[in-house]
Amino acid sequence: MTEKKNFTLAVVPGDGIGPEVTTEALKVLDAVAAQHGVTFERTEYDLGAKRWHATGETLPDAELEEIRKHDAILLGAVGDPSVPSGVLERGLLLKLRFTLDHYVNLRPSKIYPSVGSPLADPGDVDFVVVREGTEGPYVGNGGALRTGTPAEIATEVSVNTAYGVERVVRDAFARAQARPRKKLTLVHKNNVLVYAGHLWKRTVDKVAADFPDITVDYLHVDAATIFLVTDPGRFDVIVTDNLFGDIITDLAAAISGGIGLAASGNINPDRTAPSMFEPVHGSAPDIAGQQKADPTAAILSAALLCEHLGLTEAARAIEAAVEADIEERTGAVRSTSEVGDAIAKRAAG
Amino acid sequence: MTEKKNFTLAVVPGDGIGPEVTTEALKVLDAVAAQHGVTFERTEYDLGAKRWHATGETLPDAELEEIRKHDAILLGAVGDPSVPSGVLERGLLLKLRFTLDHYVNLRPSKIYPSVGSPLADPGDVDFVVVREGTEGPYVGNGGALRTGTPAEIATEVSVNTAYGVERVVRDAFARAQARPRKKLTLVHKNNVLVYAGHLWKRTVDKVAADFPDITVDYLHVDAATIFLVTDPGRFDVIVTDNLFGDIITDLAAAISGGIGLAASGNINPDRTAPSMFEPVHGSAPDIAGQQKADPTAAILSAALLCEHLGLTEAARAIEAAVEADIEERTGAVRSTSEVGDAIAKRAAG
Ligand SMILES: CC(C)[C@H](C(=O)O)[C@@H](O)C(=O)O
Ligand SMILES: CC(C)[C@H](C(=O)O)[C@@H](O)C(=O)O
Repeated sequence: MTEKKNFTLAVVPGDGIGPEVTTEALKVLDAVAAQHGVTFERTEYDLGAKRWHATGETLPDAELEEIRKHDAILLGAVGDPSVPSGVLERGLLLKLRFTLDHYVNLRPSKIYPSVGSPLADPGDVDFVVVREGTEGPYVGNGGALRTGTPAEIATEVSVNTAYGVERVVRDAFARAQARPRKKLTLVHKNNVLVYAGHLWKRTVDKVAADFPDITVDYLHVDAATIFLVTDPGRFDVIVTDNLFGDIITDLAAAISGGIGLAASGNINPDRTAPSMFEPVHGSAPDIAGQQKADPTAAILSAALLCEHLGLTEAARAIEAAVEADIEERTGAVRSTSEVGDAIAKRAAG
Repeated sequence: MTEKKNFTLAVVPGDGIGPEVTTEALKVLDAVAAQHGVTFERTEYDLGAKRWHATGETLPDAELEEIRKHDAILLGAVGDPSVPSGVLERGLLLKLRFTLDHYVNLRPSKIYPSVGSPLADPGDVDFVVVREGTEGPYVGNGGALRTGTPAEIATEVSVNTAYGVERVVRDAFARAQARPRKKLTLVHKNNVLVYAGHLWKRTVDKVAADFPDITVDYLHVDAATIFLVTDPGRFDVIVTDNLFGDIITDLAAAISGGIGLAASGNINPDRTAPSMFEPVHGSAPDIAGQQKADPTAAILSAALLCEHLGLTEAARAIEAAVEADIEERTGAVRSTSEVGDAIAKRAAG
């Protein structure tokens, strides 16, 4: 338990459905705050498509330094079709993840019995993906020559370091250690990407020696997608690189209740900068502003935020409220704020 | 219809279950050959784990040049746990694909009503993935520095050229044109991999102008995995890069009858070198030599081979035989050769 009572949050509602779902996550945070004797003081940052159109800015360094002073960041969603693809993703979202050294991108997947899965027989699913967040093909290390001509060449460089791989692998082992099944699966593609893949494999083999009670296995990313639909119950903790983690966590969300429930934490385990919590889903501009978005993923991300701040009971209260709400879902349409209200009420207890 | 009657095949049974399933594919080819007045003369190449252990060779250039003289290549599977990961994949399988310029890696997915899907309600699934086969992160363009030390850095470079992207995109549009739904989906990750992703997107937009009756859409690879489990019926032709294609075709196989049915063709559409046909599945060393492997994917790959050689009727006969066989599958266990016998008999009939 932390001694700290007053927490500061940097809030980045972002684009599309981001603001709507963030409102509900904050509502729920306030509901548990009162209950658990803490406060969340927030500063909102107007970043995203509107800001870019108005000023050309994605995330000015000065603003990033302000954001850095907070205890945690709550983010809605980033990206809009009116902005060239990549501008906001790279200039805002990835800039936050990379600069604040969010090397553990934590994405739990759980099947709630009352929520349908597209799988006929999903079984008992409860795993967490530890996605590396600061290296791999996401580093932005590429380029293009003779763009727009028939002689164009475009490259993307995946950068992987022993430093970067080992720290996330250690974090994943520690998480596996804290879970009952104590199993870790490395997902990569080391039969083709031999340089990066072998670094990952060697690192897992090395760190495994420090965690003798963890069962370790390895799957190529293509095979992992098969098991995610034929036997997702086999997974406990998955550790993988930034791009493979992006792909398999959307699939994991899809098989376990849908992207409306998938939460994530961009964690800086060394606490040298604030961690950031956001739903796995995107900005869904087609339904933005219509109160149609499911805020559950944002709310569960707020639970991960509480957990990270040491507010374990508040985290459990939010999760329990969400589970209770989910169990009573009837298929009747509720607005974004109705879902938030219902969960906030339960969470407040 | 081709005038040619006598075809030469280079056969690479490879590792694990490769030889077993290849035997059945050849059995079925012989069955249709008689029927359609053609012959398949084959030369077998002893390549794979055993050869590597004995001689250290994966695919000597001289042998590759011999293989090149054939009309087509039939491959079983490559890879064995006794060989360091990547040695056979890069040195044999990818060497064939790259040197013989197999730039269209064709992977159809179809749900047969009688075959179970892990999806509760898969709907009507009939799409084909056109996976680029000679560029992307598969080029082997990477390296490692200070290997095995805490200061190690390993890179993988994805190489994408206008030349390489446009030819595969054109091929995919032409395939969409020949199909009733006339729809093409580009799958990439252009919000993060902006250099490669924008080249792909721009190329699709440009080529689309030459195919005005094709409906085009774009999905990020992470979102594509969601739709593959929630609404696979939406897909008609998917075009994507080498790595994304690897990942989503295993997932596509898993949702549509399993990896035991997934066929593929590594096509050189310009016919400057023989194309190569192989099941999507791997060498499955755990069940090798036990007559437990399902040879259907290898047999369907032989149908793609016939199609490529202009033997359309033979291809249809094999596909019809497979469909009929699949429809009567009861769940009773049959050996690899029993399945091959049954399909060969139907195909001949
Ligand atoms: C929006 C995009 C840049 C992002 C990613 O690729 O990481 C998203 O897909 C995610 O998974 O958080
Ligand atoms: C064996 C491996 C190199 C290969 C690939 O990654 O292309 C396989 O997974 C495939 O899909 O054909």
